[in-house]
Amino acid sequence: MEHLPGFRDFYPEPLPHQDVWSADARQYLFDKWRDTARRYGFREYDGPPLEPLELFTLKSGAEIVGQLYNFKDKGEREIALRPEMTPTLARMVAAHERNYKKPIKWFAVPQLFRYERQQKGRLREHFQFNADILGETDGAADAELVALLIDTLRAFGLTTQDFVVRLSSRNAWQAYFTQHGGPTGREYDFFQVIDKLERTSPEESQSQLAALGFSLEAVQGFIRSGEPTAELAAILDNLAARGLREFVKVDYHVVRGLAYYTGPVFEAFDVQGEFRAIAGGGRYDNLVKLISGGKAHLPALGFGMGDVVLLELLKARGRLPAFAARVEVVVLIEDEQLRAGSLRLVQTLRDAGRAVEYALTPTRPNKQFKQAQELHANWTVKLVSETVVEVQHLNTRTKRSGPSAAVLHLLAET
Amino acid sequence: MEHLPGFRDFYPEPLPHQDVWSADARQYLFDKWRDTARRYGFREYDGPPLEPLELFTLKSGAEIVGQLYNFKDKGEREIALRPEMTPTLARMVAAHERNYKKPIKWFAVPQLFRYERQQKGRLREHFQFNADILGETDGAADAELVALLIDTLRAFGLTTQDFVVRLSSRNAWQAYFTQHGGPTGREYDFFQVIDKLERTSPEESQSQLAALGFSLEAVQGFIRSGEPTAELAAILDNLAARGLREFVKVDYHVVRGLAYYTGPVFEAFDVQGEFRAIAGGGRYDNLVKLISGGKAHLPALGFGMGDVVLLELLKARGRLPAFAARVEVVVLIEDEQLRAGSLRLVQTLRDAGRAVEYALTPTRPNKQFKQAQELHANWTVKLVSETVVEVQHLNTRTKRSGPSAAVLHLLAET
Repeated sequence: MEHLPGFRDFYPEPLPHQDVWSADARQYLFDKWRDTARRYGFREYDGPPLEPLELFTLKSGAEIVGQLYNFKDKGEREIALRPEMTPTLARMVAAHERNYKKPIKWFAVPQLFRYERQQKGRLREHFQFNADILGETDGAADAELVALLIDTLRAFGLTTQDFVVRLSSRNAWQAYFTQHGGPTGREYDFFQVIDKLERTSPEESQSQLAALGFSLEAVQGFIRSGEPTAELAAILDNLAARGLREFVKVDYHVVRGLAYYTGPVFEAFDVQGEFRAIAGGGRYDNLVKLISGGKAHLPALGFGMGDVVLLELLKARGRLPAFAARVEVVVLIEDEQLRAGSLRLVQTLRDAGRAVEYALTPTRPNKQFKQAQELHANWTVKLVSETVVEVQHLNTRTKRSGPSAAVLHLLAET
Repeated sequence: MEHLPGFRDFYPEPLPHQDVWSADARQYLFDKWRDTARRYGFREYDGPPLEPLELFTLKSGAEIVGQLYNFKDKGEREIALRPEMTPTLARMVAAHERNYKKPIKWFAVPQLFRYERQQKGRLREHFQFNADILGETDGAADAELVALLIDTLRAFGLTTQDFVVRLSSRNAWQAYFTQHGGPTGREYDFFQVIDKLERTSPEESQSQLAALGFSLEAVQGFIRSGEPTAELAAILDNLAARGLREFVKVDYHVVRGLAYYTGPVFEAFDVQGEFRAIAGGGRYDNLVKLISGGKAHLPALGFGMGDVVLLELLKARGRLPAFAARVEVVVLIEDEQLRAGSLRLVQTLRDAGRAVEYALTPTRPNKQFKQAQELHANWTVKLVSETVVEVQHLNTRTKRSGPSAAVLHLLAET
């Protein structure tokens, strides 16, 4: 029996096949995400993986609705597996924002789902690092969030040789739209054309823009200028003060597909241009108000970083460590008369926080030793009598013996 | 807008309401689960939260099927949100067992789903620590697994005053059933009656047992004897060698509801009897063969420990720490001329692994200091000129000044 198409099994490394995913690598990503969030003072939250369908259809833009993993539950409720975290965050914050000091800085590591037409290797789920700041209109919040994005990627050993954050703004494009006499109420259509410019033929873009009264040449001229608006200049200055300026460039190609963005937007890309965007986000000042039916009105901004592209990038750049069982000590049981005493040793070592393995059933001594080596254990520990233990360091081959009651001390010394 | 009934939102502490769950407490549980698994040499795996319905209906016993959260996806596939992890584990192991040395010791922390009739406070999802050993028939594996269960609970500060593991065996009941002339093929019906004995009136149990040719009195006599079979005695001796014997008692009330158990079974309960079972598991030697259609045949055993009962127990016993933002340093910006330099300090401290907060926008100095106190930060750090920094320890009120380039050194000293 197989798992569903577009879903992943996560195995311990070493992996049995290339097309299988690693639970160790996934945990490595999650740990780095959580640690960077902690350094930035972000607090963790989570919501249900299932939400009422209307939470997502309310105003997420046409693009998302056709791709929802939705169904009716046994109670005839319209349900969807969450395709993104922001509506859930807006719902949660709107319900209890009074309890939390502003700005609210929260993160989550949700699994997200989309029912896209099945293509080879195309996934229907992924995990995402989501970080958001709520309750602050100042660009200092946008800079703090972009800095978090940069430092998250730096935590994996990635440098300016590996990635760049392309910074842009809906406001810059809104101003362009207005100044060039764009038709009232058609901003979102215009943003959609800009969003797809790099993936669409010039002829098609030209005709889509012409239908809105714009010329491709003028639009490309504005993009090429790359002149930061005052709003973006303030963010860049803030990042420069932190020493992070070199990770960012203004790039007006970025406008983000979702309808709800209202200000600065950004995406992180690999410098070599091999992969899809590593992360993306921006300001969405009206969404909390919308989701809460006007109950709460908090300006907000956030980004999402998926596990799939990041993992591909880290692999391609040789930045993923080798994962293995993290066994520190193997207790060798060469004399079955000493099994009970050996189990006591196992317990003492585990109680002291050590990762310990041993042969559950009688096993030839040389096989036990070979297993200790294959597990890359640091030490073997062996009872040589009821009261005497021998500790060996596997790399240096140093050996020490002593009373079994002093095993922790012997281990620290060997 | 509300979340779906039976689902939970997880908020950062302090919590806005009693009926809201804590993301911090959840992460505390997950961290302890992962750390205990590591000490025991268990490796992490995971599968999809959605699986083909037939993975669960195949042979999970009648009890589980009526409670599945199942539906048809857009591709007309019969799908279910996983109600338990064991079928997924069996599927994954069956597919790739040759890649892994036996015994396989794996764990997972899945979210599980059941569509139970909605009652007040009754949840439709929970998280579960799942640990399994595959490829070992010897009772030493059962003892290793029960020891892991005990040490998982001990890791939360729980003692023999708080919990007990009730150990039993399907084999003991199978022998009783056969010796007392139970009708062929009705074993599972008999186990179901035993499983519910403590929650059913004596009259009803009596009549259910009589229908199978047994007397309640005799059954209760066998339970009261509490005499360990040879199989259970070996497990108890193994646990005694580790010093964990006092956490376990033989209790034949336990038989476990699921159809697929084949040998020793066990459940952990709070000693005061206030809560439902904290954890439960046992041996299921035929499931991998069944799930894999005979491709793989690995004896196996495992347990599951849910987050809900454990959290209730830890709260009731005062074993849950106080959770808060884990901010270590607050950088005070009292002179806006020094904001750029202060941002550089923030970056230096975060690069060094410190959790750092600061006021995103101009804020009165005494308000900034008050926030540092409310965050329970260890230190404040303040630029007093472009090149001089003042570090204050908030508990001891010790202050030190020096060159801003030496801020990490000053922090370590203060």
